[in-house]
Amino acid sequence: MADYDTDNVFAKILRGDLPSHTVYETDDVVAIMDVMPRADGHVLVIPKAPSRNLLDIAPETIAPLFEAVSKLAVAVKAAFGAEGVTIQQFNETAGGQVIFHTHVHVLPRFTDVPLKPHTGQMEAAEVLALHADKIRAALEA
Amino acid sequence: MADYDTDNVFAKILRGDLPSHTVYETDDVVAIMDVMPRADGHVLVIPKAPSRNLLDIAPETIAPLFEAVSKLAVAVKAAFGAEGVTIQQFNETAGGQVIFHTHVHVLPRFTDVPLKPHTGQMEAAEVLALHADKIRAALEA
Repeated sequence: MADYDTDNVFAKILRGDLPSHTVYETDDVVAIMDVMPRADGHVLVIPKAPSRNLLDIAPETIAPLFEAVSKLAVAVKAAFGAEGVTIQQFNETAGGQVIFHTHVHVLPRFTDVPLKPHTGQMEAAEVLALHADKIRAALEA
Repeated sequence: MADYDTDNVFAKILRGDLPSHTVYETDDVVAIMDVMPRADGHVLVIPKAPSRNLLDIAPETIAPLFEAVSKLAVAVKAAFGAEGVTIQQFNETAGGQVIFHTHVHVLPRFTDVPLKPHTGQMEAAEVLALHADKIRAALEA
């Protein structure tokens, strides 16, 4: 497996070199809005410790990552009045991974509404900021 | 959210009332072959403690579940010479869930090979047994 690249987009966000819409943060993880959401409220949960994916992640990084995923799943469902939540996590290019710092997709879902295709289109910053506000409010409720 | 149904298929498997191809087991989790695999080596990791999904799971159930997912991701990739691994976890019907006991899909992936569609077709028991053997061998290697 390739080495961890410290210049990946999430490493830059974690260092503060790139902006993000952060909805949740602990000593171990950060949750941010996906800038190309496949559903309204599409959040990424990212461990702060470096790893490419679940194939090289340190065992101690796993628990806080998925405890946060569970918490965000509950929060995005409440924030958007969703009926379900889909979790996806991709490992290596063949597994669907694009950015090589471990991250978990949390997607609010509604009956018979498929996920939007990957268009490569960025969502407007104002929309993401509004969605982030809703999720933060749900986390605090 | 609905209550946990003790007669779901995975509860029956955990009680030994239904058979399964088990590849891994600890005090907290079991990993079995998906009988309708969307890729060769498609494994489900299932916590023994009852919960419908990540929306009602007990916090203490999360760490052993996803530690096992990471271990199985490495093992199925090695067992099938895969190039990547996709993790999926579905919550409620709208989120893609069919069986209402928490479970995590671990799918070996190859470049440009999409997941097989959900056909409802059961894989032959001999094939699942052979795949289970490969995964157990990879876990022991």
